[in-house]
Amino acid sequence: MIIVMKPNATKENIDFVEQSILSCGLKAHISYGENITIIGVVGNKALYLDKNSPQVFPGVEKVVQVSESYKLANKKFKADPTVIDLGDGVKIGGEHFAIMAGPCAVESHKQLMETAMAAKNAGAQILRGGAYKPRTSPYSFQGLEEEGLKYMAEAREATGLKVISEVTSAQAIEKAVNYVDILQIGARNMQNFELLKEAGKTNIPVMLKRGLCATIDEWLNAAEYIMSGGNENVILCERGIRTYETSTRNTLDISAVPVIKEKSHLPIIVDPSHATGVRNYVAPLSKASIAAGADGLMIEVHPNPAIALSDGPQSLDPDAFKTLCNELKPFLDIMGRKL
Amino acid sequence: MIIVMKPNATKENIDFVEQSILSCGLKAHISYGENITIIGVVGNKALYLDKNSPQVFPGVEKVVQVSESYKLANKKFKADPTVIDLGDGVKIGGEHFAIMAGPCAVESHKQLMETAMAAKNAGAQILRGGAYKPRTSPYSFQGLEEEGLKYMAEAREATGLKVISEVTSAQAIEKAVNYVDILQIGARNMQNFELLKEAGKTNIPVMLKRGLCATIDEWLNAAEYIMSGGNENVILCERGIRTYETSTRNTLDISAVPVIKEKSHLPIIVDPSHATGVRNYVAPLSKASIAAGADGLMIEVHPNPAIALSDGPQSLDPDAFKTLCNELKPFLDIMGRKL
Amino acid sequence: MIIVMKPNATKENIDFVEQSILSCGLKAHISYGENITIIGVVGNKALYLDKNSPQVFPGVEKVVQVSESYKLANKKFKADPTVIDLGDGVKIGGEHFAIMAGPCAVESHKQLMETAMAAKNAGAQILRGGAYKPRTSPYSFQGLEEEGLKYMAEAREATGLKVISEVTSAQAIEKAVNYVDILQIGARNMQNFELLKEAGKTNIPVMLKRGLCATIDEWLNAAEYIMSGGNENVILCERGIRTYETSTRNTLDISAVPVIKEKSHLPIIVDPSHATGVRNYVAPLSKASIAAGADGLMIEVHPNPAIALSDGPQSLDPDAFKTLCNELKPFLDIMGRKL
Amino acid sequence: MIIVMKPNATKENIDFVEQSILSCGLKAHISYGENITIIGVVGNKALYLDKNSPQVFPGVEKVVQVSESYKLANKKFKADPTVIDLGDGVKIGGEHFAIMAGPCAVESHKQLMETAMAAKNAGAQILRGGAYKPRTSPYSFQGLEEEGLKYMAEAREATGLKVISEVTSAQAIEKAVNYVDILQIGARNMQNFELLKEAGKTNIPVMLKRGLCATIDEWLNAAEYIMSGGNENVILCERGIRTYETSTRNTLDISAVPVIKEKSHLPIIVDPSHATGVRNYVAPLSKASIAAGADGLMIEVHPNPAIALSDGPQSLDPDAFKTLCNELKPFLDIMGRKL
Repeated sequence: MIIVMKPNATKENIDFVEQSILSCGLKAHISYGENITIIGVVGNKALYLDKNSPQVFPGVEKVVQVSESYKLANKKFKADPTVIDLGDGVKIGGEHFAIMAGPCAVESHKQLMETAMAAKNAGAQILRGGAYKPRTSPYSFQGLEEEGLKYMAEAREATGLKVISEVTSAQAIEKAVNYVDILQIGARNMQNFELLKEAGKTNIPVMLKRGLCATIDEWLNAAEYIMSGGNENVILCERGIRTYETSTRNTLDISAVPVIKEKSHLPIIVDPSHATGVRNYVAPLSKASIAAGADGLMIEVHPNPAIALSDGPQSLDPDAFKTLCNELKPFLDIMGRKL
Repeated sequence: MIIVMKPNATKENIDFVEQSILSCGLKAHISYGENITIIGVVGNKALYLDKNSPQVFPGVEKVVQVSESYKLANKKFKADPTVIDLGDGVKIGGEHFAIMAGPCAVESHKQLMETAMAAKNAGAQILRGGAYKPRTSPYSFQGLEEEGLKYMAEAREATGLKVISEVTSAQAIEKAVNYVDILQIGARNMQNFELLKEAGKTNIPVMLKRGLCATIDEWLNAAEYIMSGGNENVILCERGIRTYETSTRNTLDISAVPVIKEKSHLPIIVDPSHATGVRNYVAPLSKASIAAGADGLMIEVHPNPAIALSDGPQSLDPDAFKTLCNELKPFLDIMGRKL
Repeated sequence: MIIVMKPNATKENIDFVEQSILSCGLKAHISYGENITIIGVVGNKALYLDKNSPQVFPGVEKVVQVSESYKLANKKFKADPTVIDLGDGVKIGGEHFAIMAGPCAVESHKQLMETAMAAKNAGAQILRGGAYKPRTSPYSFQGLEEEGLKYMAEAREATGLKVISEVTSAQAIEKAVNYVDILQIGARNMQNFELLKEAGKTNIPVMLKRGLCATIDEWLNAAEYIMSGGNENVILCERGIRTYETSTRNTLDISAVPVIKEKSHLPIIVDPSHATGVRNYVAPLSKASIAAGADGLMIEVHPNPAIALSDGPQSLDPDAFKTLCNELKPFLDIMGRKL
Repeated sequence: MIIVMKPNATKENIDFVEQSILSCGLKAHISYGENITIIGVVGNKALYLDKNSPQVFPGVEKVVQVSESYKLANKKFKADPTVIDLGDGVKIGGEHFAIMAGPCAVESHKQLMETAMAAKNAGAQILRGGAYKPRTSPYSFQGLEEEGLKYMAEAREATGLKVISEVTSAQAIEKAVNYVDILQIGARNMQNFELLKEAGKTNIPVMLKRGLCATIDEWLNAAEYIMSGGNENVILCERGIRTYETSTRNTLDISAVPVIKEKSHLPIIVDPSHATGVRNYVAPLSKASIAAGADGLMIEVHPNPAIALSDGPQSLDPDAFKTLCNELKPFLDIMGRKL
C-alpha cells in the first residue's frame, strides 16, 4: 500500500502517517520527491487498514493499493490451474472443458427429463436447472424448490450427467447438498456474503457467477469468502455485465477470461445465454469463449423455448444445441481441450 | 404488453400469436400497419408471460412492456405519499423529513455512545450503525453482530433517538427485530429475494438501499417483494450507482428522487456518504438532495474518522455534522419540510 | 508518477527502470519493500512518458499517476475562482450565477423571438439556441446554420440578453464569433480536439459540455486544450452522463459540481434538461444544482414544446419557466449568489 | 412508431394524438385496450417527429420506436454482405478476412518501415499508423501530420501493404486522401457529424470506430451519415466500450459482432489492442473475435513497445505478432475465411 502526500504536506503530516504505520508494528518506507512525498506501508496492510483511514489524515492526497486482498484465489500463491473433479471422469479446468446445459428453471419432471436426454445426447456432461429462482418481480414463477431438486437427481440417475442448481439461501444449500454435484451462486447473490460463507462450509464444488456490476477484483474476493471457509473448489462463471448497451440483455465481458487466467488459478466458464439474452448470439459467443480460453460453457436448453416459464428467448431447442456442440468441437481441438 | 411483428411476418405468424393470447383467456388487439403489425395483449400480462415467450415466436420482432410489474409500490394505485411513523413524533415522508446519522460500523460501546450524543445534539432523529457488515474482503472487519445491536438499543435508551441497522441474513433479522426501529437492507442485498421475503414477514419498517447497478424499476420490484409479504412500511434509499467515473466512489443518481416521486408513494432518502465516499462532498450533496425533494438523509458520522474501522474517508466528525445540520435548515424551510 | 514493481522483479529489472528515468534527466526514488519495490519518478512525467512505456518494462506491475496532466485548469495553480465577464454586468462564476434559457434548436425568427422575450421576462440573462445541430440520425433536422445565428443576434438586440450557440466545426466557429457571446462545444465534440484548438484561438468565452462518458479528468484535459491555445475563458457544463439507467435520458452527475469546485477554478453550470430528458424533472434538479454549488443553469424553453423540432419532451413552456425562476430565487439567496 | 396512452387518457387526448398524425398525411391505428390505448403511426415517422413531440402531448405515457432510423446501413434493405475491395486482391467482408497492423502513432520513417516489414512478413495485408493523434492531454505527442502520411505512402510502396490512417478534421481528410487506402474515423469522433459528412464526400473506404459509449444503433446511424453522403464503403470497428471495469482499458463488446451481423450488411472488424490496453490479452481476444464472426482485426505492433510514443503497453513486438498470426490461421480455416 502506498500513501501519496499532497504537495503542501508538512513534516508533521508525514510524521503522523509514519507513526500510524509504526504503531501497528509495520514498517514505513518514505520517498521524498521534488513536490510529492510517498510513503510505502510494508507488511500486512489489512492490519493497518483495520485501525486507520489514512485517506482522511491531514496532508494525504490518496492511498493506492498495490496488492490484491484475495489470497487463496490468487495465482501468485498457486500457479497451477485448479481442476475441479466431479467424479466419473468429469473435470473442469486445466485441459478439461465442460459443457453445462439445461433449462433456466425446472418446470416439470417431463420437461427436465426431455432436456436432460437432449443435453446428454448432444454431448454435455452437466445438467443445469433452477429449482430456487431469483426473479425480479415477486409475481413471476419462483421455482419448484425441493421438488425441482428431486427431478434433477432423477435426471442424473437416468442419464449419468452431473447436475448443478442454484441456491439462494442457507436453507436451499441444506437441501441442495443432498441432490446436486455443484452448487450455483447466482449473479444477484455474488455479494450475499452470508450465503458465500454457508457455501464455504460445504464440501461440494461451488460455481460463483459474476455480479451484474461486479469488478473482477470483487468477484475474486467473493470467491475468497467461499475458499476461506474451507471449500476451495470454486468455479467462476462470467455471465455478462450491465452496461448502457441495450441490444443485448447484458454485455459479455469476454476479456474476463484472460484476465482471470492471469490473476487466478480457478477455472472460468462462460454463460452466453444470460450474457446476451438472445439465442441467435449463443453460438458465436460460445465459440468465442472457447477461443478466448474459457474452461467451459453454460448454455440454456429447453425442449420448447416458446413456452418456457423463464428465459425462453435465450434458450436453444435440442436440435440447435446439438448442432452447436458439433460446431464447437474443432475449436476445442485447436485449443487442446478435452471435452 | 405489445407484441411487434416483423415486416415480413405472415398471416400464420400473426394467428399464432393471437391464439397464444386467446388460449390464456385474454384479449388480443391487432393493429395492421403499412409494414408492421402490432398486437396488444389486453389483461393480465403476467399470466400470459408465465406460459409464453413470445419473443421467440416466428415473425415476432420485439415485445414491449407498457405497464409496471410492481403494484403495491406503484403511485398509480395509491396517490398519497406513504408516511412512516416511528413513534414519539418521528416520521418519514409527506411533509416529514428525517436525518439518520451514525458510524458505518458499530465498533465499541464508547464509540457508539459518543456518536449518538453528537447525532442527537446536532439534530438527527435516527441513529445508524452497522452490526452485521457486508465487506468486500473476508479479511476485513465483519461487525460486532448481536453485541452491536445491544449497543444500539442502549444508545436509543440514552438519547431517545430511533435506531436503524443493517441485516444480512434471516438470522440477523430474527435478532435485529428485538433491538431496532428500522431494518436496513443494503445495496448488495437488494436482490437477495429470500432476505426481502423475510423482511416482509416482520412488522417493523424496512429501509431498502438501491443496488449498485439496479434500475429504478428493479428497485421498486424489490420493494414489492417486501410489501407483498405484508409489510408495506418501506423506505427507499438512493446511495449512488456504479458508473465509469472514479472521482467519487459511486455516482449519486439525484434524478432518482423526482423519478421515485413520480412512480411511487414510498418515501426516499439519500445517503451522500456512500454515494461519494468523500466527506467534502457530503454537505453540498445533502443540500442538493433536500432541494430535489428527498424525504431524508443518511449521513456517516464518527467521533474520529481517521481511526474508523470502516469507511472513515466518507465520515464527518461531530463538529462537521453539527455545522451541516445547521446549514440544512434553511433548505428544509424553503421546501416546507418539518424536521 | 510511481512505478510499482512485481514481487518477483529482479535487480536488473529495477536497474532498467532507474536507468530509463535517469536518461531523461529526471530523478528516481526507489523504495524497497518486503515484497514490492516502488520507484518514484521525480520531475516532468510528461517528458518521461513521451519516451517510455514503463508498463511493459520487464518486472513492472503497474504505473500509478499521482498528479493531474491539466495545468491551466487546475485549482492547484490558481486558487481564485474564474469569473467570466460577458459585459453589461452579466458574469458567471464566483458569486455570480447565470441562467441560460432558450430552445434546443433555432427553428424560425418568430419562435426564437417569442422564446427570447419569455426568457428575458422570467429573469434569464443568456439566450441559448442551436443553429448547427449534431443529430444522431442524418435524416433529422440539422439546424438553420448562419440564418439561425442571425436570428440569435437579432434576439440579443431586441432583448439585451447575451447569446450562446453551439459550434460543430471550424467553419461554424468562424461564423459564430460574429454573432454570439459564448461559443458552446457540445457533449459529442468534447474530445474533438481539432475543434477545441480552434475555439482556443478565439477570444470569446467557450462553454464546454461534458462528454457522454467522459471522466472529470478527461473533461478538464479538454478544457486545457482550449486554454493552452490562449483562451482561458472556459465555462464547464455538466449535462448528464451515460449509465445503464433508462428512466432518465442521461444520469445527472450532480457530484461533478463539488468535484470540479475542488479540482478547478473554472465555473460550472448544469443543464438539467439534457441530463434528464423529462421536463417534470427540470425544476427539482435545477434547485438541486444550485444547492450543490453550481454557477449557473442551462434550461430548454420553447413557446410550444409539443411541436418543437428537437427535444420537445424536455422543454419548459414560458409559463413553467417563469414559475421555475421564481422558485429558484430563495435557493440563490441561501447560497449567497447574485443573479 | 407506437404511442402508448396513459390509463387515464381521455377521448380528447386520444383525438389530439390522432389529429396530429392525420395532419401530417399519415394514418393512425388505434387499439383500445382494457386500461391502455395504443396508437400506431403508419408511414414516415421522421416526417411526423419533425413536426411533433408526442411525448409531451396530454395523456401520452410513452413513445416506442419500432423501426430503425438508419436505412443504407440496414440489413433489411440489403441482405448481402458488403465486401470492401481495396485492390490487388485485398478485400474485407463476406468470406474475406483482413489483418491491419502497425503502430499507434507514426513516430519516424525508420520506426514505420521496420513495423511495415514486420507486418508484411507476419501476414498482415494492411498497415495502420496514426499521423493525426487525438490525445487526451494537449501536452502529449500530437502526431507527425502530413509527414507521417508520407511515410505511410512510402511504406506501402516498399511493402505492397494497403494503408489506413486516422483523420481528425476536414483538413486532415483533404491531405489523407492523397496517401491512404482507408480513412479511419476514431472513437472520439464517431459523432463528429461534420467530419462524417466530409468523409461521405470522398470516394475511399472509411473505417468507423465505435464511440466509447455509443450504442450499436448510434454507431449505425453514424455510418449512415457517411453513406447518405454518397460513400457506402464503410467498415465498422469495435474497439471496446467504457464500463466500470478497470482491469482492462475498455470492455471489448464481443457481442457487437453477431449483433452487427444481424442488423447490418457492413463488415465489422475488432481492435483488441485498444479494447484491452494490455498486450497479453490481445492474442486470446483476436482468436475470440474470429470465432465470433469478425471480418478482420486491427492490432498494434511496434518494433520496441517499451519506447513507443503512444500506447506501448498494448503493442505487440514483431515476434509476438508473427506468432499470433500463425496461431490465428486454424481459426480462420474453421470459419471458412480467406486471409
